[in-house]
Amino acid sequence: MSEMLSRLRTELIAAGQFFHSRGWVPATSSNFSARLGDAEILITSSGQHKGKLDDGGFLRADLQGNALDEGKRPSAETGLHTVMYRRDPAIGCVLHTHSVNATVLSMRLDQVVCDGYEVQKAFPAVDTHDSHLLIPVFPNSQDIPALAAVVDAYFDANPHTVGYLIRGHGLYTWGATVADALRHIEALEFLFECVYRQMLLDR
Amino acid sequence: MSEMLSRLRTELIAAGQFFHSRGWVPATSSNFSARLGDAEILITSSGQHKGKLDDGGFLRADLQGNALDEGKRPSAETGLHTVMYRRDPAIGCVLHTHSVNATVLSMRLDQVVCDGYEVQKAFPAVDTHDSHLLIPVFPNSQDIPALAAVVDAYFDANPHTVGYLIRGHGLYTWGATVADALRHIEALEFLFECVYRQMLLDR
Amino acid sequence: MSEMLSRLRTELIAAGQFFHSRGWVPATSSNFSARLGDAEILITSSGQHKGKLDDGGFLRADLQGNALDEGKRPSAETGLHTVMYRRDPAIGCVLHTHSVNATVLSMRLDQVVCDGYEVQKAFPAVDTHDSHLLIPVFPNSQDIPALAAVVDAYFDANPHTVGYLIRGHGLYTWGATVADALRHIEALEFLFECVYRQMLLDR
Amino acid sequence: MSEMLSRLRTELIAAGQFFHSRGWVPATSSNFSARLGDAEILITSSGQHKGKLDDGGFLRADLQGNALDEGKRPSAETGLHTVMYRRDPAIGCVLHTHSVNATVLSMRLDQVVCDGYEVQKAFPAVDTHDSHLLIPVFPNSQDIPALAAVVDAYFDANPHTVGYLIRGHGLYTWGATVADALRHIEALEFLFECVYRQMLLDR
Repeated sequence: MSEMLSRLRTELIAAGQFFHSRGWVPATSSNFSARLGDAEILITSSGQHKGKLDDGGFLRADLQGNALDEGKRPSAETGLHTVMYRRDPAIGCVLHTHSVNATVLSMRLDQVVCDGYEVQKAFPAVDTHDSHLLIPVFPNSQDIPALAAVVDAYFDANPHTVGYLIRGHGLYTWGATVADALRHIEALEFLFECVYRQMLLDR
Repeated sequence: MSEMLSRLRTELIAAGQFFHSRGWVPATSSNFSARLGDAEILITSSGQHKGKLDDGGFLRADLQGNALDEGKRPSAETGLHTVMYRRDPAIGCVLHTHSVNATVLSMRLDQVVCDGYEVQKAFPAVDTHDSHLLIPVFPNSQDIPALAAVVDAYFDANPHTVGYLIRGHGLYTWGATVADALRHIEALEFLFECVYRQMLLDR
Repeated sequence: MSEMLSRLRTELIAAGQFFHSRGWVPATSSNFSARLGDAEILITSSGQHKGKLDDGGFLRADLQGNALDEGKRPSAETGLHTVMYRRDPAIGCVLHTHSVNATVLSMRLDQVVCDGYEVQKAFPAVDTHDSHLLIPVFPNSQDIPALAAVVDAYFDANPHTVGYLIRGHGLYTWGATVADALRHIEALEFLFECVYRQMLLDR
Repeated sequence: MSEMLSRLRTELIAAGQFFHSRGWVPATSSNFSARLGDAEILITSSGQHKGKLDDGGFLRADLQGNALDEGKRPSAETGLHTVMYRRDPAIGCVLHTHSVNATVLSMRLDQVVCDGYEVQKAFPAVDTHDSHLLIPVFPNSQDIPALAAVVDAYFDANPHTVGYLIRGHGLYTWGATVADALRHIEALEFLFECVYRQMLLDR
């Protein structure tokens, strides 16, 4: 277990440094997690700068979001991570980032629709640009259990969703591994910048 | 004292390198300070590039802005730092940066208003996105004592303000520590980019 | 041969790191190749992140796109590389990147036309800004042989073309050496950003 | 002399790396020079990538633009450097860069006018934002002696000009030292981005 925890922590620290270089984790926004086992995850602790994480910036939690390491408080948004791990045992990593484009689009749209972009193939089971990618936008809330219930219900009805936005608050996406979730972040941020630039040209 | 000075200098040098990587301290613009005690601050000296500071780029000053190190001249805008330290003993760091967005917004608006952004929670005593953040814009002036008096009067009337813009000249913000002030810079620059992009979409 | 392969691999790895720093190779998009001889190329293997390539991320292929290294699968788009090497023995490197600007322009234009830009001189046989550079846009397809045939036919009619876009999918360009192809990427991406900004100002 | 040459070369190499990180020296555009004495300059040689210069990428030239080092060819635009060194013995460095903003603005405006920006104080003899900065735009030409004559005549009439643009071709600025010229590049590029963003908001 310890070796796995150490490897995942290293991968999440590197992910945070990359996101910081792009401006996607401003201030103490964002949070990252990875699965340690059937009933346990590793997650960033509350109040850290996600671009400057060190080994101390993480703790273990169960799938109900209870801390398993004494004296540490998990991110306030832990419930939005655990809902995904409970839904799907194949999910090994959940990443939440907070870019300008994700924020601006989420404040102007009810969903982000992507058609005809080759990069849509970055997602599992998509093998052509000639597909239709829909990223829903949920209203923001400080009541995380309520927000997690909204997400859970949406996924019951739309199981193939690859990520979602919270209004004014950023992006959640996931994958089997940290590398997979990271690829989804890169693909979605790329698409958000494309959609923003298209909107500017369309006015 | 010497150890504290050394640590704060190191933190301000690193802050400057980060700002430079983002393009927020062009030419010899911007200046940074941190509190050394009840009546003393550390501040960048005049004419330095703030992205390439070394230990020699700082001097000590009292809260009236007088140099306490012989042969060095504090930044011309020292009075805008000292007014904050005099107002509030809890302030440990004042940062002034000079980004394109801060400059452009300050030339077109009398205040920057932010509503519904999750990142507003980066500021003390804000615990929901459902708050209202107002960043005032003051006219620029080469008469720093006069400008400091305008700032001082504004804060008497609006004590919860977290930062302000000077027209065509950039951003001032602060915090209990260098890390707090840095978080405020990151949050405000993120918000300025969001507001600019919203303005483009709104035309 | 081995020394040449090693040198070209190193150059392509560095090219990928540079493109990643600019955001031009998101997720596992893009692919790179270089000529090893009359009938052999080095090409990135399928599914790699092109900003984090290592020596294992490449394989040798013939000019029909067949793998020459056992157990490795070349990029799905190998046929768009080999068509160029077959057409012109002077081509030593083919680079495909995937930037936001290339994507957005390719979804709105049938060709990108550049006039009066000094940087047009980055291309062979262009010695004045007072030239006319035309980058065609081809419809995207998951049928690479069909797409390669479209490209081949276009070049029969337009032999002096220096690069092309695939709709929603990015840029292909080439050169005698990796350095030459890299210079063409830089020049074309520069021009795409100029054209995008001009389009915004023209609305 | 040798120590001075070595120091200036190191400073120009570092300047090129910084410009490259900002995207201001795409492909083999741009060129840099510094004064070695009353009648001699150091200048980048033709065809180099200005973000990856090494010691071999420079040569000495006289103030008429003749190479003083055998076997090396100075930049095609050497005449635009030497005209400045001949005009003013206080000039120690001339930098030419090639950014997207400089290019786009130069293709839409006959002059770039800046008013009310604090960063205008980056230029000699400007001590207030309440000044008026005018950057002229000259038509591009491959006839460098003719272009140098246009520049020379303009400066006879407008001796306080701090930089100029060539249409579709980028920026020339200078200073007493490499650091001074670099500060002017940073200030002008900052202003160009501000002016571009203002133009977008003004449409």
